[in-house]
Amino acid sequence: MSRVRVHNFCVSLDGFAAGPDQSETDPMGVRGGTIHEWVWDTRFGQAMIGQEGGSTGIDDAWLRLGVVDVGATVMGRNMFGPIRGQWPDESWVGWWGGEPPFHHPVFVLTHYARPALELAGGTTFHFVTDGLDSALRQATEAAAGLDVRIGGGVATVREALRRGLVDELHVPVVPVLLGAGERLWEDVGTWPQGYACTQIESSDAVVHLRFERA
Amino acid sequence: MSRVRVHNFCVSLDGFAAGPDQSETDPMGVRGGTIHEWVWDTRFGQAMIGQEGGSTGIDDAWLRLGVVDVGATVMGRNMFGPIRGQWPDESWVGWWGGEPPFHHPVFVLTHYARPALELAGGTTFHFVTDGLDSALRQATEAAAGLDVRIGGGVATVREALRRGLVDELHVPVVPVLLGAGERLWEDVGTWPQGYACTQIESSDAVVHLRFERA
Repeated sequence: MSRVRVHNFCVSLDGFAAGPDQSETDPMGVRGGTIHEWVWDTRFGQAMIGQEGGSTGIDDAWLRLGVVDVGATVMGRNMFGPIRGQWPDESWVGWWGGEPPFHHPVFVLTHYARPALELAGGTTFHFVTDGLDSALRQATEAAAGLDVRIGGGVATVREALRRGLVDELHVPVVPVLLGAGERLWEDVGTWPQGYACTQIESSDAVVHLRFERA
Repeated sequence: MSRVRVHNFCVSLDGFAAGPDQSETDPMGVRGGTIHEWVWDTRFGQAMIGQEGGSTGIDDAWLRLGVVDVGATVMGRNMFGPIRGQWPDESWVGWWGGEPPFHHPVFVLTHYARPALELAGGTTFHFVTDGLDSALRQATEAAAGLDVRIGGGVATVREALRRGLVDELHVPVVPVLLGAGERLWEDVGTWPQGYACTQIESSDAVVHLRFERA
């Protein structure tokens, strides 16, 4: 049975999962990168940028879990890029360049149609114009028995949580304050109604919380 | 050197340290009690209500730290009671009844003067009408070399943090959402500027964060 999972969806102490004013130079919003800095200290994070080394402890283990048995990804348009409205052309291929780290089909939510984009390493971006349910359905089919990961951004994860579409959620809480940005824990009511916090584990840098549908 | 400390100042995942609409029946605001439920599972918590038993692990140890070397407490008026405006009479003696668990002088911030209130077990409430600095000064003197603990509520702790008056802050993060209430991490900017998160430790129920002035 294919599951829908969210992994490594970092929030600051004050609950922000992205800073304000996303742009091409601030993909995670102003100061949003500070809640991901710990990733670069890990072996997993170093491997993402083609480097060796990095820590192999708790943080690294949680990052690795995020790619296990994932056969397709769903993401909102802001996680794909900074462009709003119509696509001016097809030159934007995502934040990750010509060889993205997904290595499987990725379904991008957008109001503006665009042909599928096949890149090196097995990643193909499909642009879905008819909403989250459709994207999840297509992703589940493409995952062929493996799980579907919702990558982000904040609005997409919130919609999925609010509607109870997520089976498992991993949130690293990072002890910094952003002061402004997009809150993960907003408009989800007194959630986790229907969910239980099933694991709490902390390293020196980060608190890892796992929630699962009760 | 006497220090100013905040301990066991619980926040929900969405950053609320109290629920909305405090009243005599909801001392911590509506649903605010849910972020303190873990306390009752501990030996420390059980002892607070005159019971034996309870867990003796990580959570209990953090609770105990909050009373070590504390010689006086400062609190806002809402932490003392639900009454706003003028004191109608002197019948309200605090949420804790006739023998409060402080056993030392407590300085209550209020705009309305009231005679000191001496209760059983060594707790005397002093009512301070000239602000936080005065309360801290009086508490430091009364503590006679021991530390001063700021007990709460949220507005008082926020003012102290914003103004850098706190030397040490212990925040248990509880994996529930309140959805509404009073946020701890608001109007404190991108704090912890000037502070460092010096410890992260988690039990099965709670994440304990310690911040100290860098």
